[in-house]
Amino acid sequence: MTQQASIQVIQHLTSELTEEQVTVNDTVRELHGRDESYHTEKLPDIVVFPKTAEEVSKIMKTSQKFKMPVVPFGLGTSLEGHVIPDKGGITIDFSFMNKVIEVLPEDFLVKVQPGVTRSQLNKELKKYGLFFSVDPGADATLGGMVATNASGTTTVKYGVMRDQVRNLEVVLADGMIVQTGNMAAKSSSGLHLNGLFTGSEGTLGCFTELTLRVYGIPEHVAAARASFPTVDNAVEAVVSILQAGIPIARVELVDEASVRQVNHFSETDYHEQPTLFLEFHGNEEGLKQDVAFTEEIVTNHGCGQIDFETSTAGRNRLWEARHNLAYAFIHGYPGKKMMVTDVCLPISKLAGAVAHARENLETLGMDGGIVGHVGDGNFHALLMIDMNDPEEVAKAAEFNERIVQYALERGGTCTGEHGVGVGKLKYQQQEHGNALIVMEKIKQALDPDNLLNPNKILKPTERGAVL
Amino acid sequence: MTQQASIQVIQHLTSELTEEQVTVNDTVRELHGRDESYHTEKLPDIVVFPKTAEEVSKIMKTSQKFKMPVVPFGLGTSLEGHVIPDKGGITIDFSFMNKVIEVLPEDFLVKVQPGVTRSQLNKELKKYGLFFSVDPGADATLGGMVATNASGTTTVKYGVMRDQVRNLEVVLADGMIVQTGNMAAKSSSGLHLNGLFTGSEGTLGCFTELTLRVYGIPEHVAAARASFPTVDNAVEAVVSILQAGIPIARVELVDEASVRQVNHFSETDYHEQPTLFLEFHGNEEGLKQDVAFTEEIVTNHGCGQIDFETSTAGRNRLWEARHNLAYAFIHGYPGKKMMVTDVCLPISKLAGAVAHARENLETLGMDGGIVGHVGDGNFHALLMIDMNDPEEVAKAAEFNERIVQYALERGGTCTGEHGVGVGKLKYQQQEHGNALIVMEKIKQALDPDNLLNPNKILKPTERGAVL
Repeated sequence: MTQQASIQVIQHLTSELTEEQVTVNDTVRELHGRDESYHTEKLPDIVVFPKTAEEVSKIMKTSQKFKMPVVPFGLGTSLEGHVIPDKGGITIDFSFMNKVIEVLPEDFLVKVQPGVTRSQLNKELKKYGLFFSVDPGADATLGGMVATNASGTTTVKYGVMRDQVRNLEVVLADGMIVQTGNMAAKSSSGLHLNGLFTGSEGTLGCFTELTLRVYGIPEHVAAARASFPTVDNAVEAVVSILQAGIPIARVELVDEASVRQVNHFSETDYHEQPTLFLEFHGNEEGLKQDVAFTEEIVTNHGCGQIDFETSTAGRNRLWEARHNLAYAFIHGYPGKKMMVTDVCLPISKLAGAVAHARENLETLGMDGGIVGHVGDGNFHALLMIDMNDPEEVAKAAEFNERIVQYALERGGTCTGEHGVGVGKLKYQQQEHGNALIVMEKIKQALDPDNLLNPNKILKPTERGAVL
Repeated sequence: MTQQASIQVIQHLTSELTEEQVTVNDTVRELHGRDESYHTEKLPDIVVFPKTAEEVSKIMKTSQKFKMPVVPFGLGTSLEGHVIPDKGGITIDFSFMNKVIEVLPEDFLVKVQPGVTRSQLNKELKKYGLFFSVDPGADATLGGMVATNASGTTTVKYGVMRDQVRNLEVVLADGMIVQTGNMAAKSSSGLHLNGLFTGSEGTLGCFTELTLRVYGIPEHVAAARASFPTVDNAVEAVVSILQAGIPIARVELVDEASVRQVNHFSETDYHEQPTLFLEFHGNEEGLKQDVAFTEEIVTNHGCGQIDFETSTAGRNRLWEARHNLAYAFIHGYPGKKMMVTDVCLPISKLAGAVAHARENLETLGMDGGIVGHVGDGNFHALLMIDMNDPEEVAKAAEFNERIVQYALERGGTCTGEHGVGVGKLKYQQQEHGNALIVMEKIKQALDPDNLLNPNKILKPTERGAVL
C-alpha cells in the first residue's frame, strides 16, 4: 500500500470512527504483527479499535472501498500465525468490545462481546453456579476461540468451541450484519452457518457478539494423577477407559520430559514418569464408582502410582500446572521460540502416533515434551527452537512434517484445535482434496476480493486464483 | 419437461447405468412423489437406483447436461415434503446403497451407505455392544437423517444428527466427489463442511457414504413415567431436572390426549394425565442417586404418580409406545392426514409455548396431541386434518402459523428437527433475516443452475432469483 493510499484510508476511518480509535503508532502495529507462535511477523498498516458492530461494519465498508485487507485480533494468543496480517492492511482489535452482555442461567446461555476472555467469563459465570467449558492453554478471547474452533482439556466431555455456539453476530465483507443462529438448543432451519463461521479464522467475517452454551458447575469433582512406565501404557489405558463408557471429564497425557518441566516451573513434585491427569464430574455415588473402575483399568495397564487430588486447591494446582506447561517450556529455554504440533487421530491410532513422535524426537536429537488431550486423540509435541540456528529450524519443520503425514495417512487431521493460520496452509490440499474447492467457492462467494484475513486457510496463489 | 427431452435423458441415463436402474413406471414415480406429510404430491419424471458413488456422479452430470433437477430419496419418511420433486426431474432412490460398510468399535465409528436405516444399523451395532443414538419417530434412512439434521428422544444427552457426523462422501452438482471431514474426534482444519452439508436437504449435494459416531450401550439404564396434573407442571419439572445437572438421557412429554392415543394403539394402560417419559444412563450407583433426586424434583412439581420401568421389556414397551405415537394418531383418524408442528425454543420459554399451543388448539376447536423432546425445548403438536375440508385445512395452517410466530418472537426456530422442506420455506426470511443472503450465496456457488432439490430451504423466486 502506498503511503498516500494509506493516508486516505486513515482519513476515512477517522471520519467514520473517532481519532482515538485509529492508530498507525509503530509500537501498537508491532503488537499486532505477531502471535504466540514462531511464525514470522508482518505489520498491519493501521490498527483500529471499534466499540460496536456498526463501527465494525464501517471498517468493513472502508476495507471494500479501498480494497485494503482486514484482520481481526483478540489477544494474539494464536499458535499458527492466524493474526499476522499477511498482506498488511487494517487490523481490527476487539479489546474495547469486552462486555459480558447477558447471562441466561435458565437457558444455560451467555451473550458476550468477542473481546471477553475465558477467565473473565468464568469469573462472571461463577456468580450463577455456571462455567464455560472450553479451556485452551492461553487465556484467549472468546472471539478468537470461535475463530479457531478452539478446544481444550474438557472437550472429551463437553465438546469443542463449535459445540458451544448458538448464535454469532457476524459482520460480513460488505459490512452487512447477520445473525447465524438462534437461542434454541437445536434447529433444522436453513443452512448451518454457526458451524461454518466457527473455525473460519476471520476469512469469512468478523464476530461482534457470541451466544454461547454454558454448564452448571458440577457438584462433585474428583481428580487424579496416574503414572505409567511408558507413554504407550498410558494411552492404552485411556482407550480402555473410553471403551468402558466411563464419562471422563478430562484426561491429559503429560510425558516424562513435560512432567519434569512442570515440576521445575510450577514448584510441584509430581512423579517424573509418563502421567495421566484425570478428572471426573458427576454425582457423589456415581463418581466413586467411576473412580474405582478407572483405578482398576489403569492398574491393569501398568500404572505404578495413582494419587488423588481431593481438595479444590490440589485440583486447581494440577490443572494450573497443566495449563502453564507451554509457559514452563518457554521459560526453561530463554531465547528460543516454541513450535507446537497439533495433530488429531482416530483414538485407535493414537498410541502409535505418540510413539512415532517420541522416536522422531530422538532420531532428530531434539528437546521437547509430548502432551495431549488423549481422550480426543489429539496430542502436541512442544519443541523449543533457536530461530537463529537454521539447522534447528529445519529439523523442527521436518519433525512437524513427519507428525502431520503420519496423522493424515491414518484418517487424522493436521490440526486438532490450533487451526490452520499460516502454519498448516500447506497441508490443506492434501487433507481436504477436492473439498478444498468447495471451501474456495464459499470463500469467493462471501469475500470475492479476498480481503478478509487473506492467505489464511485458503491461499489463492497456490491454485493460481481462488478457484 | 417435454416428452422428447425426457426420452433423451432416459436414453442417456440407461447408457450410463443399466436399464433396470432407470424407470418411468407410474407406480414407482407415485411412490416417489410424496412423503409422510400432508404436503401435495408431485411426480418425478424419472426414478433412478444407483449402486455406487460413481453412478451418482454420472446422474449428477446428466442432470447438469440436460438441466434437469435431481432429488435424493431415502424412504420418504420426511415430514415437510422434502422429497417431493417440486420441479419434477430425476429422483435418486438410495435403496440399493444400503450396506453397513465397516464398524470401528475402538474408534466408536461406523461407515455406512446412505440407504441404511437406523434400525438396520442398530441391529448390526448390537453385536459390538454399540448403538446409534439418534432416533426420529420413523425408521428413516441415515442419509435422510443427515439431510434433515434429524434428532429424537436421546438428543438431550447424545446430541443431534450433526453431532454424529465425522465425514460425508458427497457428490456435488457437477459430479465431483468430495470428503467433507475425517475420522478424528475433532479438527480445526479448513472450513467446516460436515456441518454445512448436514441439514442441507439435498440442496448442495447427495451423500454416498457417511462416517458416524456411535456409543457403547450403557451398562445400566433406568426408565420412569411421571404424571402431572398439568402440562406446565411437567415442563417446569424438566427445567428443574436440567438445572440440577442430572445427566438425563431422555425426557419426553406426552400430553393427556396423546397418552390416551398411546393406550388405545399400543394396548398400554398408562395413567391418562400429562406424563414425562424419562430415561437415565450411567453406572449403577450414580443412576440410583440420579433417579432418587429426580423423584424428589418431580414430586415438588406436583407429580402424583411415578412408575419405574425396571425390566428391559418394560422400557422397550415404553419407548415403542412413544415412537408409535404418530402412527397411533394416524390409525385413530382414518382418512385424515397428519400435520406436525416442530418449533424449538430456549428452555425458559417452553412452558409458555406449550400452554399457548394447548390454548390455541382449544380456541380453534381442533383435535390433537402435544408431545415433545422437552429437554431440548422442542415440542410437536400432532393435528389430524381432513384434507378435503377447506375449513379444517385453513385452521391447521392458522394454528401452525401461530405456533411458529410464538417461537420466532422468543429466540426459537420454526423447525427443531423436521427440517424446512416445503412447509417451513415461508418462515426462512423471517427467521434468518440477512443470513438468508449468505445461504443463498453458498447455494449459488455450489449449485449455480439450482438443480439440486430446487425450492427446498431457499426459493429463488421469492427474492426474484437466487441473488
